[in-house]
Amino acid sequence: MEKKRYFHPLGIKNYEVKDSFWSPKMEMVRTKMIPYQWKALNDQVTDAAPSHCIQNFKIAAGMEEGKFEGCVFQDSDVAKWLEAVAYTLAWKKDEKLEALADSVIEIIRKAQQPDGYLDTYYIINGLDKRWTNLADNHELYCAGHMIEAGVAYYQETGKTVLLEVVKKLADCVDRTFGREEGKLHGYPGHEVIEMALVRLYHVTGEERYLRLAEYFISQRGQEPLYFREEKEKYHNPFYWERSLFQYQYYQAGKPVREQKHAEGHAVRAAYLYSGMTDVARETGDESLMEAVKTLWEDVTKRQMYITGAIGSSEYGEAFTFPYDLPNDEVYGETCAAIGLVFWAGRMLETELDGNYGDVMERTLYNGCISGMSTDGTRFFYANPLEVNPEACRKDQRKKHIDVERQKWFSCACCPPNLARLTASLGNYVCGIREDTLAFHLYIGGVAAVPEKEMSVAVESGLPWKGEATLTMQGNPGQMTVALRIPGWCRNWTVLVNGETAEGVLEKGYLYLERNWKAGDKISLNLEMQAERNYANPSVKADIGKVAITRGPLVYCLEEVDNGAGLTRMFLPEKSSFTLAESGLEEGAVTLLTDGCQLATEGWEHSLYRFEKPDTFEKKQLTFLPYYLWNNRGVGEMTVWVNEIQQAP
Amino acid sequence: MEKKRYFHPLGIKNYEVKDSFWSPKMEMVRTKMIPYQWKALNDQVTDAAPSHCIQNFKIAAGMEEGKFEGCVFQDSDVAKWLEAVAYTLAWKKDEKLEALADSVIEIIRKAQQPDGYLDTYYIINGLDKRWTNLADNHELYCAGHMIEAGVAYYQETGKTVLLEVVKKLADCVDRTFGREEGKLHGYPGHEVIEMALVRLYHVTGEERYLRLAEYFISQRGQEPLYFREEKEKYHNPFYWERSLFQYQYYQAGKPVREQKHAEGHAVRAAYLYSGMTDVARETGDESLMEAVKTLWEDVTKRQMYITGAIGSSEYGEAFTFPYDLPNDEVYGETCAAIGLVFWAGRMLETELDGNYGDVMERTLYNGCISGMSTDGTRFFYANPLEVNPEACRKDQRKKHIDVERQKWFSCACCPPNLARLTASLGNYVCGIREDTLAFHLYIGGVAAVPEKEMSVAVESGLPWKGEATLTMQGNPGQMTVALRIPGWCRNWTVLVNGETAEGVLEKGYLYLERNWKAGDKISLNLEMQAERNYANPSVKADIGKVAITRGPLVYCLEEVDNGAGLTRMFLPEKSSFTLAESGLEEGAVTLLTDGCQLATEGWEHSLYRFEKPDTFEKKQLTFLPYYLWNNRGVGEMTVWVNEIQQAP
Repeated sequence: MEKKRYFHPLGIKNYEVKDSFWSPKMEMVRTKMIPYQWKALNDQVTDAAPSHCIQNFKIAAGMEEGKFEGCVFQDSDVAKWLEAVAYTLAWKKDEKLEALADSVIEIIRKAQQPDGYLDTYYIINGLDKRWTNLADNHELYCAGHMIEAGVAYYQETGKTVLLEVVKKLADCVDRTFGREEGKLHGYPGHEVIEMALVRLYHVTGEERYLRLAEYFISQRGQEPLYFREEKEKYHNPFYWERSLFQYQYYQAGKPVREQKHAEGHAVRAAYLYSGMTDVARETGDESLMEAVKTLWEDVTKRQMYITGAIGSSEYGEAFTFPYDLPNDEVYGETCAAIGLVFWAGRMLETELDGNYGDVMERTLYNGCISGMSTDGTRFFYANPLEVNPEACRKDQRKKHIDVERQKWFSCACCPPNLARLTASLGNYVCGIREDTLAFHLYIGGVAAVPEKEMSVAVESGLPWKGEATLTMQGNPGQMTVALRIPGWCRNWTVLVNGETAEGVLEKGYLYLERNWKAGDKISLNLEMQAERNYANPSVKADIGKVAITRGPLVYCLEEVDNGAGLTRMFLPEKSSFTLAESGLEEGAVTLLTDGCQLATEGWEHSLYRFEKPDTFEKKQLTFLPYYLWNNRGVGEMTVWVNEIQQAP
Repeated sequence: MEKKRYFHPLGIKNYEVKDSFWSPKMEMVRTKMIPYQWKALNDQVTDAAPSHCIQNFKIAAGMEEGKFEGCVFQDSDVAKWLEAVAYTLAWKKDEKLEALADSVIEIIRKAQQPDGYLDTYYIINGLDKRWTNLADNHELYCAGHMIEAGVAYYQETGKTVLLEVVKKLADCVDRTFGREEGKLHGYPGHEVIEMALVRLYHVTGEERYLRLAEYFISQRGQEPLYFREEKEKYHNPFYWERSLFQYQYYQAGKPVREQKHAEGHAVRAAYLYSGMTDVARETGDESLMEAVKTLWEDVTKRQMYITGAIGSSEYGEAFTFPYDLPNDEVYGETCAAIGLVFWAGRMLETELDGNYGDVMERTLYNGCISGMSTDGTRFFYANPLEVNPEACRKDQRKKHIDVERQKWFSCACCPPNLARLTASLGNYVCGIREDTLAFHLYIGGVAAVPEKEMSVAVESGLPWKGEATLTMQGNPGQMTVALRIPGWCRNWTVLVNGETAEGVLEKGYLYLERNWKAGDKISLNLEMQAERNYANPSVKADIGKVAITRGPLVYCLEEVDNGAGLTRMFLPEKSSFTLAESGLEEGAVTLLTDGCQLATEGWEHSLYRFEKPDTFEKKQLTFLPYYLWNNRGVGEMTVWVNEIQQAP
């Protein structure tokens, strides 16, 4: 196992986050979301549908009597909870929480079957039925999440109980699935186990797990289609019979190397592509890496919202077709954005390319954290870029858009996914390959490289100020520091100990190679101003419109600041912006500018006229960071705003 | 029965259409659609799903053995066919066709039950089940269409066999439904019988039928909701349980006089409102007329497309909310537009108001006849204002949009509805009240008023030329001719015998009262030029866009003339239009102008940028009458086009 061929994350323990933007969010996850989720898992949240998750495991373990309840993938909720817990324990000791997690692991261990099988739905309902509906019943999805939890818990706590459980589980899966005769030639309906198996391979060094991940990916979509045969054999329902997706809903209608466009369920797709990247990187499979890059181009250059949201259709929670990016009917599931961060992080392990970092940063700061309220108690499943509450109440096409964040969901995938992403943020900040330490994001903290007996202290003003300082500590010596120069930055300077740094800029990274000493200071100054963004002219939803960004943040107009009728708001082409305190989060700034609104006066009794509506009322517009919207009640919101060439 | 209190249509026999635009369409209905539909009803169309319609009647009549097949409302297809046949017989004798219709009527007569009941679904499947699912099983809808057929066949042929059948049927319905104890307090799930009963009242003079229509309307939506109770009593499925409509899908969630917004299924709504108008007019019920006017305002000032299409959502084939008029996801069912013509025609019977005439004309010339191909063999169910074939193939939200007209539909409501509307066009041209003869539309032909021993010969250049001439014939004497001055006309002149006519203009009608003599000639000159139309600024789909009309016709851009990428097409604010022959129909003109298209060059690898896309390529744009689109293959189409203030 040659770990250093690629830019390996330092690991959560080795990037201690101390950041005025992110630390409060991580602490919120630890002190609010994780305890709340624990209550939910134990059916103690009074105003939410019972999860039954822990109960299912106790029944499967023979500790209690009862029926399986909840979604068929209910097991994954406890796995994601354990994974998030593991990450918080990496940066904040909490003996009580760890003891609680250990007790849950013990229940899981007891529920595992002698052959390693572990899925409470089938353990309770009859093991004879297992592996008969891979397409829809999520056994391999639950296994994947449990493996991720087992690996994380081992990595962050050093404890092996859950690791042993998931090794046994992975062995069971490995005995069951594969190309060999006598094995099932299947693969998961909902991907995630591919990534999980590569992580398990990393911590165990057991190549079987990597081979199994590779099998799942390469077998996917091969004719005869496994899901078609499975459906026919077991008379399973096929929910996508009348859909345009067919088996591409699962990304399983053709071999993955032949898939040139992102199709189907967006979360599944992002997880698959992440797993494909892992396997391609580990195995050096060039055809697979080429497929990954083609899909990356398709997703990020043709099917991604400016917030990093992906999946433009609620039907199937899915991708549709290039440049189809409706702002009001979008799905943009929080989990899909999280999946895109996973994928971008993996692309950066493969190759330092600022495009990957730009997408990761954009998605993290916008499409992901828009999923939670500032107090960490309410969550979005869908993340629209334009909301009219009346439309959501009266138009079935927008019924999936919650007009305010919800406490919990019956399918509760997004909140725990946000918890595990946020708690593991340290994993995404930098990567190391041999003597090169690369910074992808500028998040305050300390990056430790124990094997080099060095570390880097990072101070950052992002996302509010375009300043970051990196101070070398320990004995760095001869090495290269690679700094991502964000795509949103027009002008920047990098100083080393106060002098202009000489380095090589390549694909968005500035490489500084030298003999570093403790105390050496790298100062980045990244010019950050309100910028007008325009979409590709093929995006019909954004024709004639502009979106405002500042640094990594996408901004929006919200009704509470700007009044109603946001679709009639216009931004003159030349208006300038001033900063103001938002009052919503420490340091968070809004952008003020002069705009105008097309008046409706006189139109009360007309729907169509020969005379062009040309009465504009002047309005001061307040742009708010998109991730902060909907923290002050229900109202309209829009990211894309009409632009006029001439001020009225 | 006081017939003359309102503007009564002359009747189809009394308006003989001879018009270069409409006569070929009427003849196409007679010679192509009616024979084709006859084949369809008899399962002789090889490439369409069998209708089984005639078969069902034969089985119900005991003439054949077999099961009921087809939709639960299959009977209505033969009723609509008979109605259309009746209308064509009014203006074109055809003994063979009449004999065929008589033979069908004979089968229907035999299928009728001794108590008058007539619905083959329940006659075949068990009469014990009848009247147990009024909400969804369309018994009263089928009865309504059969009554319309019976009345029409009697009016146009003088034959009474079907009239007697439908009287017996109406009596059966009357014995079954009503406010009285012992009767069912129900009403139809799909309206139409209300209009039908008023027509039956007209030809029979039997007030019971009018009272029954009034009952169906006033009882609708009264608590306790009949449909809710019916569903609970008979354990019927409720398809709208999880919808935003609930019982308003059927316009049955609250009393009709309390319905301020058009909601639910658009065809049902338009039929209900037409029936409400009939009943309010006949009974003088002011609260009902007020409700009708409120709904008219809502539909035509807030929920109607510029083509007259209504029903902006495919889900429920329904209205959504004010100003929600998406051009690409619209439903705009042909039948709903036809329903709007029915309604507008009825409003004009009540009061001469140009608004009603404008809507009727707009809908007839655009949203209705867009439903059929120029050769009368293919039909649209949905009538979008913007089409991208790729979207219809890849986005489930637009799957309901056929990219080309179809031969037939499994639910074949639209083609026969188009047939009966077109064949009865003479009914919509003018109306008479006492000594006032009003012209709503200018369609060539002869308007006869037998009781006055006078007629008017009409020549018209519409919709291609804004000229019409009306020549008095017979012994007109002292009377008023009221001429609708179309809302689309900026400048007009009306001459009588070559001299400027003196008259009173009120609510869009010019009243000319005088002692008319045979040979008197009224010449209308209606200035007709390409006009730019703008939508109410609250219609977000049309912000920054313009639609072109000329006279009553809405125009569109089609890919075959203008190339692909119509959403990137821009029309400069000042460009002028020239006329050209379309080559598609006799006299049909296209409009040519200079436009430009936003280029995509250089954007292949960018989705978002700081630089505004500002490369425009000059394009000559060809605007085609909307109703003529999709007669030259599959491609993009758009009615609303981006407008720029400055030419590039």
